[in-house]
Amino acid sequence: MSEVKTKAELAGSAAVILNQLTTEQKNEALLIVAEALIAGASAIIEANQEDLERGRKNGTPESLLDRLALDNGRIAGIAEGLRQIVHLPDPVGETLETLERPNGLHIIKKRVPLGVIGIIYEARPNVTVDAVGLCLKTGNSVVLRGGSAALSSNRKIVELIHLALSGTSIPPEAVQLIEDADRSSVDEMLKLNGYLDVVIPRGGSSLIQNVVQNATVPVIETGAGICHTYLDATADPQMSKEISLNAKVQRPSVCNSMETLLVHESFASVYLSELAEAFKEAKVELRGCPLTLQLVPWAKAATEQDYATEYNDYILNVKVVPHLDDALAHIAKFGTKHSECIVTDNDENAVRFLNEVDAAAVYHNASTRFTDGFEFGFGAEIGISTQKLHARGPMGLPALTSSKYIIHGSGQIRQ
Amino acid sequence: MSEVKTKAELAGSAAVILNQLTTEQKNEALLIVAEALIAGASAIIEANQEDLERGRKNGTPESLLDRLALDNGRIAGIAEGLRQIVHLPDPVGETLETLERPNGLHIIKKRVPLGVIGIIYEARPNVTVDAVGLCLKTGNSVVLRGGSAALSSNRKIVELIHLALSGTSIPPEAVQLIEDADRSSVDEMLKLNGYLDVVIPRGGSSLIQNVVQNATVPVIETGAGICHTYLDATADPQMSKEISLNAKVQRPSVCNSMETLLVHESFASVYLSELAEAFKEAKVELRGCPLTLQLVPWAKAATEQDYATEYNDYILNVKVVPHLDDALAHIAKFGTKHSECIVTDNDENAVRFLNEVDAAAVYHNASTRFTDGFEFGFGAEIGISTQKLHARGPMGLPALTSSKYIIHGSGQIRQ
Repeated sequence: MSEVKTKAELAGSAAVILNQLTTEQKNEALLIVAEALIAGASAIIEANQEDLERGRKNGTPESLLDRLALDNGRIAGIAEGLRQIVHLPDPVGETLETLERPNGLHIIKKRVPLGVIGIIYEARPNVTVDAVGLCLKTGNSVVLRGGSAALSSNRKIVELIHLALSGTSIPPEAVQLIEDADRSSVDEMLKLNGYLDVVIPRGGSSLIQNVVQNATVPVIETGAGICHTYLDATADPQMSKEISLNAKVQRPSVCNSMETLLVHESFASVYLSELAEAFKEAKVELRGCPLTLQLVPWAKAATEQDYATEYNDYILNVKVVPHLDDALAHIAKFGTKHSECIVTDNDENAVRFLNEVDAAAVYHNASTRFTDGFEFGFGAEIGISTQKLHARGPMGLPALTSSKYIIHGSGQIRQ
Repeated sequence: MSEVKTKAELAGSAAVILNQLTTEQKNEALLIVAEALIAGASAIIEANQEDLERGRKNGTPESLLDRLALDNGRIAGIAEGLRQIVHLPDPVGETLETLERPNGLHIIKKRVPLGVIGIIYEARPNVTVDAVGLCLKTGNSVVLRGGSAALSSNRKIVELIHLALSGTSIPPEAVQLIEDADRSSVDEMLKLNGYLDVVIPRGGSSLIQNVVQNATVPVIETGAGICHTYLDATADPQMSKEISLNAKVQRPSVCNSMETLLVHESFASVYLSELAEAFKEAKVELRGCPLTLQLVPWAKAATEQDYATEYNDYILNVKVVPHLDDALAHIAKFGTKHSECIVTDNDENAVRFLNEVDAAAVYHNASTRFTDGFEFGFGAEIGISTQKLHARGPMGLPALTSSKYIIHGSGQIRQ
């Protein structure tokens, strides 16, 4: 049997045990894992050095090496993340619904673990620990397939986790790391119906698209974000500036940052040139529609392709629109159903925008950067879902659960 | 553009309008559709005759022709089904969660339609109306791809629906029927990411497996049922007989009927031969394990393949097990996570069974035949989900919805 299938099967057997554990047992185990990671920090850093050296030899860009690098501070942060997961409420076992039927059947819908979760990700070893924490807390086994660039680090981390779990109620087999760096191990995971209950991709859009296009196992898509901010005719100018700058530059590399600013023409005629200066100061390159170029002559011209691009960078499209309807149509055409914002003092327009825009998160007078598990108060998140099935938006612990109907009878049969 | 893409795009535009309708508007439209079907009954029956004649010419088996056939009574039943959907509560707009954040953000999680739902099904024209009713009630557009054997009937039904909707708030484009009988139209639907939000297969296991194996659009799997009933050592003999007979013979062709009876050896030694006689009287063929064959010499021998087969017929596997653990292991190996039952007077064993068996519905002392939207009190159902994501078990109206976070701010930006 292949490595993937063997390990997924072990994870499946462990899931049966994990499913029966109490919250206390799971929390206790996670705290022991957190301690083990701290205690093993120097071993992790040593393994991480191997990855970094290999990366440098292969000419990996500095920004990627930075995401890969671990030091004592980062390991402490990772362990602290685990401790925070311990403090989150355990959704497993929650009664979601109770139905009393006329024939005396007593039906309880209960939250249960999903079973075995596959996580496919890139070169950030912190995802390894995050995913383990979130999956174990919710009673799921996890099959990890991280990027080969982080393999030494992930191997050492999982070795420490296995060692730590062996003294707890959680079977170490609940955590499986696929070490086969070949792309075929990903392909195999994507088709492992009956072994994996769900696959969650975490990474860039090509990784996500590969998973979505090839998986027969159910997927939770944590997708791209082409997010818009629309400044309406009655938008407060100061608030507009603060929100749009924040949405663009506070952290341009993430999915909830803004890629296109839509501006009502009456607002634009008074305020756009000043606003453009603020973006210029923040080192943002502007790409504008023809009307924008009239008001901001130094901006570049935006193409259709620009509107369809998630820059994740200091680049912003600006489009002047004659009416809210045009903003809605633009978002419907180019948005990725992630996060969209309207800044306005007109309540009627706000309500229309919030109702009609089809996205995981729609904002009135606040930055799209808030679409985040921590900011919503969920604690750690496994990602932000851009699909509509199962979970949408920031996914906290309940997104890693399913449900089950438990029916108590006294001999009922169907007529 | 292909028929599938053109129609899916029309459905998508209609979904934007549908999304904004009130419950009253939707209900009113559904009642008008119900009337139109009754008024158009003779036209439907005429079209249905074409399908039936073609079917007879092609040598379609009588049982399939029966599922395809429509008469005044069946059409009245279909219209009545629509009226029942009108009376169900509308889940859209429901507030699922409210979060007040320390920074003053006010976050509301609301239930919204999924958008555009693709339904792929076989030759039962009643599914056409059912699906239309359930999808429209929940504010979704629907793209129907029924079996070619029912094409004339479906065409006429959808023509009547379009005509009826044209006088209502629901745009007729919200209902689309794919008329291309070629298998390639199904393949195209399965890859229509960005146009279809979900595909739901309704039909036999080969149809479902084709959808699961080939879809890149999210799928809700309404799967096969290899359901077990386990008679524990302390099971009440009369209740055991009633429940197991009901689970097998009340309607053997459906997914929640029993395929394998597991019997504790101490119960078997006293009661199995009598129970076997009852099945014999009900014309059920028994296939037994070696211990069963000792007690019921006239039974056939069961093979591993038998345990893995969904008969949907008057055939039953019987296996004697020495312990609850063996029953659990058998179910874990051969079950399809649909519906499983334990009959016992031992509460400890009942709790273990209900907790440890991984299935959409687990029963203590009641027939598995109850896994059904009507029996659970949900009213009409779009199917029974055997996957763990999004919806599990009988799917009522809420399974056809997603959610959306609506965030009200006053200028908040992220620090």
